[in-house]
Amino acid sequence: MTDLNTIGEIGLIERIRQATTAPAHRETVRGIGDDAAVFDWGDDYGLLSTDMLVEGIHFDLTYVPLKHLGYKAVTFGVSDIAAMNGLPVQLTISIALSSRFPVEAIDELYEGIRAACEAYKVDLVGGDTSASRSGLIISVSVLGKVPKNLITYRNTAKPNDVVCVTGDLGAAYLGLQLLEREKQVFLADPNMQPNLSEERAYLVQRQLRPDARTDMVHELRDLGIRPTAMIDISDGLASELLHLCHQSGTGAIIFDENIPIDDQTHLAADEFKISPITAALNGGEDYELLFTVPPQEFEKLSANARITAIGYLTADPKQIVLATKAGQQTPIRAQGWNQ
Amino acid sequence: MTDLNTIGEIGLIERIRQATTAPAHRETVRGIGDDAAVFDWGDDYGLLSTDMLVEGIHFDLTYVPLKHLGYKAVTFGVSDIAAMNGLPVQLTISIALSSRFPVEAIDELYEGIRAACEAYKVDLVGGDTSASRSGLIISVSVLGKVPKNLITYRNTAKPNDVVCVTGDLGAAYLGLQLLEREKQVFLADPNMQPNLSEERAYLVQRQLRPDARTDMVHELRDLGIRPTAMIDISDGLASELLHLCHQSGTGAIIFDENIPIDDQTHLAADEFKISPITAALNGGEDYELLFTVPPQEFEKLSANARITAIGYLTADPKQIVLATKAGQQTPIRAQGWNQ
Repeated sequence: MTDLNTIGEIGLIERIRQATTAPAHRETVRGIGDDAAVFDWGDDYGLLSTDMLVEGIHFDLTYVPLKHLGYKAVTFGVSDIAAMNGLPVQLTISIALSSRFPVEAIDELYEGIRAACEAYKVDLVGGDTSASRSGLIISVSVLGKVPKNLITYRNTAKPNDVVCVTGDLGAAYLGLQLLEREKQVFLADPNMQPNLSEERAYLVQRQLRPDARTDMVHELRDLGIRPTAMIDISDGLASELLHLCHQSGTGAIIFDENIPIDDQTHLAADEFKISPITAALNGGEDYELLFTVPPQEFEKLSANARITAIGYLTADPKQIVLATKAGQQTPIRAQGWNQ
Repeated sequence: MTDLNTIGEIGLIERIRQATTAPAHRETVRGIGDDAAVFDWGDDYGLLSTDMLVEGIHFDLTYVPLKHLGYKAVTFGVSDIAAMNGLPVQLTISIALSSRFPVEAIDELYEGIRAACEAYKVDLVGGDTSASRSGLIISVSVLGKVPKNLITYRNTAKPNDVVCVTGDLGAAYLGLQLLEREKQVFLADPNMQPNLSEERAYLVQRQLRPDARTDMVHELRDLGIRPTAMIDISDGLASELLHLCHQSGTGAIIFDENIPIDDQTHLAADEFKISPITAALNGGEDYELLFTVPPQEFEKLSANARITAIGYLTADPKQIVLATKAGQQTPIRAQGWNQ
């Protein structure tokens, strides 16, 4: 018997993918291996993505309000669609929950789900409800679409392409550290008030109620740019950059000083004695997009403050490195899964 | 705070449905309230259904082989698509599992998933894998399609329509009773061999590895019949007949002697001192279809041994009854959920 931890999540997905038979339907354009499956929906490509959130693994109800959790569950799914350069159309939400949850808790969860559906303009069209032996499990499936000439995969980047990220990175991870610390304080003395002052509000918000970057999908279309490749980086910049490079057959040089990091993230990283670059590379849960554009296209993006060029792709697939100002290069590695 | 059990699954779904806002997309033809959501996919309607299976609630790994569980998970989702008179095209499977499962267990689960994908001609196109704190959770989303002129809802039946069911009913429930009994015997004395002889094989197979009735969708098309309404009865004949009648605004008279019950089901029901009619009405997990056709259409079906007319619809929505040969009528009620 082989312990699951020895192969990890990537190994498991690869094992499942390899064992999958060839598609039986001509509508199936692409299956396992990108942020969403792709199918031929007449004028557009249809996109289907699915994610599961498990209490105790993905969220801790000690400090996650159910309303925010509902919003985040939708963000989770919509972000996969955005990563294909698509927009969400419909979604289903299934929940399994133990009887410790009162009806009002479910109302609160769905309040967040609905707020997200309105924000992302996606229709809640179904789901399933079930009992569970312990805790809350949420499964989100999102159906999206993208004009055929705009679909963006993760394996089509080219050497010399400029590597861009949206927003800033590492904030959600520091937000989690703050919330975990306040939880410990609270567990030690339930009369203590949480110390989550305004100068940390951004970090907590990035952890509890992140937004998917459908705005960037619109923005790229408005600018007339179709990225050469794109991927959602909620699992961490490092691991997703590696996916993009491995699948495209390229290397990458990323400049550490270019990685966009918010001031609040810097301050909290100091406090927790965490390198802000490590938080940005491996922290995860930043629902941002990593994408590549040909060098001559980058100028069109340079005026946009929410898009940052962090490096470029190279022809050598073995060279995926973080470079300092001084010219020192360190290989970029993904953190293990093993939860 | 309101206890979840006071409103039940139906109450919960209704609560979620009522709180759902109007669709934002013209592609959204129908959302919550039928076996699958319906969207406009050019020439066809697209169908999307999602289901969640939770260890300890929907299955017991003491006696459910993982390969069969994988097959059944796909059956679960495909059956919803068949109930819309559609055929499955793609599916995604997400699993959350604790580290007690070795890699080989997942291989076994996917072996069953793949066998089902081949049997139903559906492409496995994605999914998600996650850790869980306890047990195995499987979420299945199926995308299907149906020609626009063949879609069959559950709320469009008419008085005088003939009520039909496919296959036979109650077997899966008796199969479950047998497996549960053998489990108790085994727990009491692990050296005992299970007493699952050949004359019970059908019951056990119906419980462990049921088939969705995509064959009936093909058959109805071949016969040139589009049912006036259709619904999947894996939750039990009684509750699903009530849904069909309530949503169509009709009553129904069902003849108990017409309900198709296999000989093995009769024998086991005797042994367990369970009424076979009760098993057929409320046992559930029979992945069969309940549908209605106008009386003049029924003749086309009568030669098909796998389709049985069990009664007819009436104009009085308050009269949903089981009738005996002697003419006695009893109201049909759904068993509670409350798991």
